[in-house]
Amino acid sequence: MVDLNEMGQKAKAAERVLGIAGEQQKNKALSLIAQGIYEQVDTVLKANEKDIETARQMGIAETMIDRLRLDEERVKAIARAVLDIMRLPDPIGEIEWGRTMENGMTIRKVTVPLGVIGMIYESRPNVTVDAASLCLKAGNTVILRGGKEAIHSNTAFANIMRQAIQKAELPADCVQLITDTTRESSTALMQLTDYLDVLIPRGGAGLIKAVVANSKVPVIETGTGNCHVYVDQFADLQMAARIVDNAKTSRPSVCNACESLLVHESVADTFLPMVKQLLDRSNVEIRGCEQTKAILGDCVVAATDADYATEFLDYVISVKVVDSIEEAIDHITQYSSGHSECIVTENLPNAEKFLNEVDAAAVYVNASTRFTDGGVFGFGAEIGISTQKVHARGPMGLKQLTSVKYIIVGNGQVR
Amino acid sequence: MVDLNEMGQKAKAAERVLGIAGEQQKNKALSLIAQGIYEQVDTVLKANEKDIETARQMGIAETMIDRLRLDEERVKAIARAVLDIMRLPDPIGEIEWGRTMENGMTIRKVTVPLGVIGMIYESRPNVTVDAASLCLKAGNTVILRGGKEAIHSNTAFANIMRQAIQKAELPADCVQLITDTTRESSTALMQLTDYLDVLIPRGGAGLIKAVVANSKVPVIETGTGNCHVYVDQFADLQMAARIVDNAKTSRPSVCNACESLLVHESVADTFLPMVKQLLDRSNVEIRGCEQTKAILGDCVVAATDADYATEFLDYVISVKVVDSIEEAIDHITQYSSGHSECIVTENLPNAEKFLNEVDAAAVYVNASTRFTDGGVFGFGAEIGISTQKVHARGPMGLKQLTSVKYIIVGNGQVR
Repeated sequence: MVDLNEMGQKAKAAERVLGIAGEQQKNKALSLIAQGIYEQVDTVLKANEKDIETARQMGIAETMIDRLRLDEERVKAIARAVLDIMRLPDPIGEIEWGRTMENGMTIRKVTVPLGVIGMIYESRPNVTVDAASLCLKAGNTVILRGGKEAIHSNTAFANIMRQAIQKAELPADCVQLITDTTRESSTALMQLTDYLDVLIPRGGAGLIKAVVANSKVPVIETGTGNCHVYVDQFADLQMAARIVDNAKTSRPSVCNACESLLVHESVADTFLPMVKQLLDRSNVEIRGCEQTKAILGDCVVAATDADYATEFLDYVISVKVVDSIEEAIDHITQYSSGHSECIVTENLPNAEKFLNEVDAAAVYVNASTRFTDGGVFGFGAEIGISTQKVHARGPMGLKQLTSVKYIIVGNGQVR
Repeated sequence: MVDLNEMGQKAKAAERVLGIAGEQQKNKALSLIAQGIYEQVDTVLKANEKDIETARQMGIAETMIDRLRLDEERVKAIARAVLDIMRLPDPIGEIEWGRTMENGMTIRKVTVPLGVIGMIYESRPNVTVDAASLCLKAGNTVILRGGKEAIHSNTAFANIMRQAIQKAELPADCVQLITDTTRESSTALMQLTDYLDVLIPRGGAGLIKAVVANSKVPVIETGTGNCHVYVDQFADLQMAARIVDNAKTSRPSVCNACESLLVHESVADTFLPMVKQLLDRSNVEIRGCEQTKAILGDCVVAATDADYATEFLDYVISVKVVDSIEEAIDHITQYSSGHSECIVTENLPNAEKFLNEVDAAAVYVNASTRFTDGGVFGFGAEIGISTQKVHARGPMGLKQLTSVKYIIVGNGQVR
């Protein structure tokens, strides 16, 4: 049994200092983190080399190893991202609302840090620095539990960050990394209710599901995106083809990529061959319903229910011909993960109906689902994209890493 | 094993209708609910009579039975509260933020219902109507699981509400009551992740703790209030005594009542006898530290650590003499449930220090903790007071029963 109570206590003690630290001091720590990463690129690359070697010895696939791999340019990009976070406005101490009450008391609603955040994530080592920097900027201390494949890289980054934070005269324990990467340590983190205010998992659907099922700490679900594009009978078909192609092929491995195409039957004959021509350029595999097969021929694999429920994260798309916008919305309601959904149409009532009735973090008319992103939305950076409705929905920036406190000042009022 | 999947499906199906219903239709349903309760007062009272009888037969204490008991006036007050909720502004469809992006797309952040809400609560039958009405006004369907002591009253209320909702041409399943009041049904509700967006427990510390420990659905913790008043060395002692007396005795059974008094040692000799004089009028039992005993004498019971951690909800107060504001803040940090905390002082730096460093939903200077309340804060009504930091903190009104959706409209933009 892994005991994380001591880490929890340290995180909470550090939070009492960090939570009330000013903008300048937090920025100083972030600036020193970036500087430390620049200065210790070699240390990071050596640690990363060990991770890569271990991964090779364990026979891990090259695509996975590529996610792990850092080079000088990548490390410097990670440092630059820290400076970008530093330059964002401090989300803490904002008076969101206030008034003087009838009895003369004043009340203010002020943003405060969430507190102690747990992060469970998979292989990419940049998450270690990204997540810790966002937490720090919002006054939160963090306990990181990264994947075992990246343990050497993560440890190198954590050491650099802790040194930098201490140099800025904040407690090093603002950032802690769990170096035990057994399943037990991740379970222990999910039970750390006395110390953690929230747990944010970041990774594949399997990880997210396991954390949601097992955590006793409040969880913010992120990232699973079974995103649909519905091509309406009133669509501009050229536009629709461009949007589907972009949403599917511009970066298939990300959560805002399109996984499923729904086409109104009255335009399917014309549209499906058009979109296939674009998708063929990227060798996208099409898994379609009977009608799709009838129109596009034998190149189409028969789609199963499981296909409609799958986030492929690959050059694969499921396709279904529907007889109405209602059927499209029903299908989306059944299979959507609540991430990003799109209708392509020139018809205003249909656009409004879709926007109204589809329940997802982001709903689009005539634009690619690929835009769902904290940077694009203007939040500066994101710690993940929430697909739940409690606390935060959609891209989570600094603001979503805060809570509030009511401050009431009186002169003896009683009730 | 209780199977709530069918209820979950019905709640979700009803939510697809209620979630996009307009303000007028929701208000019509609420108006008909109030009317139905007025018209069927007798039915409600007969049902309540059965609950009271059963409670008597089971030998339940009279104070508990009083919580259960309805009379004509109480039932009418419940109906009036529904009309108050009806008159609040609709929290759904508000555009919280929006902009036109560089590429010409428009983005809007719009408030939407949370979705399907589970409520687990104890004896008071008014919660059945209050909670359901708040959920309905914010476009949420609700599955209610009340205590077994109130099952007949709750069933009568639920029937009236379902009839009214149907008359307003909304699905009756917007409000569902679990009539099985075994522990199994409450466990099943906590596992209903496919259908529930959030679970809100309302009741004593034991209930809240059990739900937080066992729920797989996101929970919003409410109501536990181990609230402190700290009387600083720079306090106006007359004011301090009035505030402590009000916070302790005006309604000891509620969560914003004061449970613990901290007094700076330099004023303890003068202040403790002063405050005791006021508390004596309500026969408040004092459990104090050694110094408190030395000052007030043998009437003081020796306080244990458990006393400092206890929400008495009764005419009992724990008292500790501290040597500094720092010791007061440390004590509060250790024992507070994060509800409401107060400092009485005329010293500005100490007031600011306390406001800054004490981590609670509401922090007071020179006013009674009893003011922490959705009605007092101007939210119109409240479904509970959140003591967690995720999603909502402090009194939860209609706004806290909403989520958001991003709506993006373009004309063919791709990334």
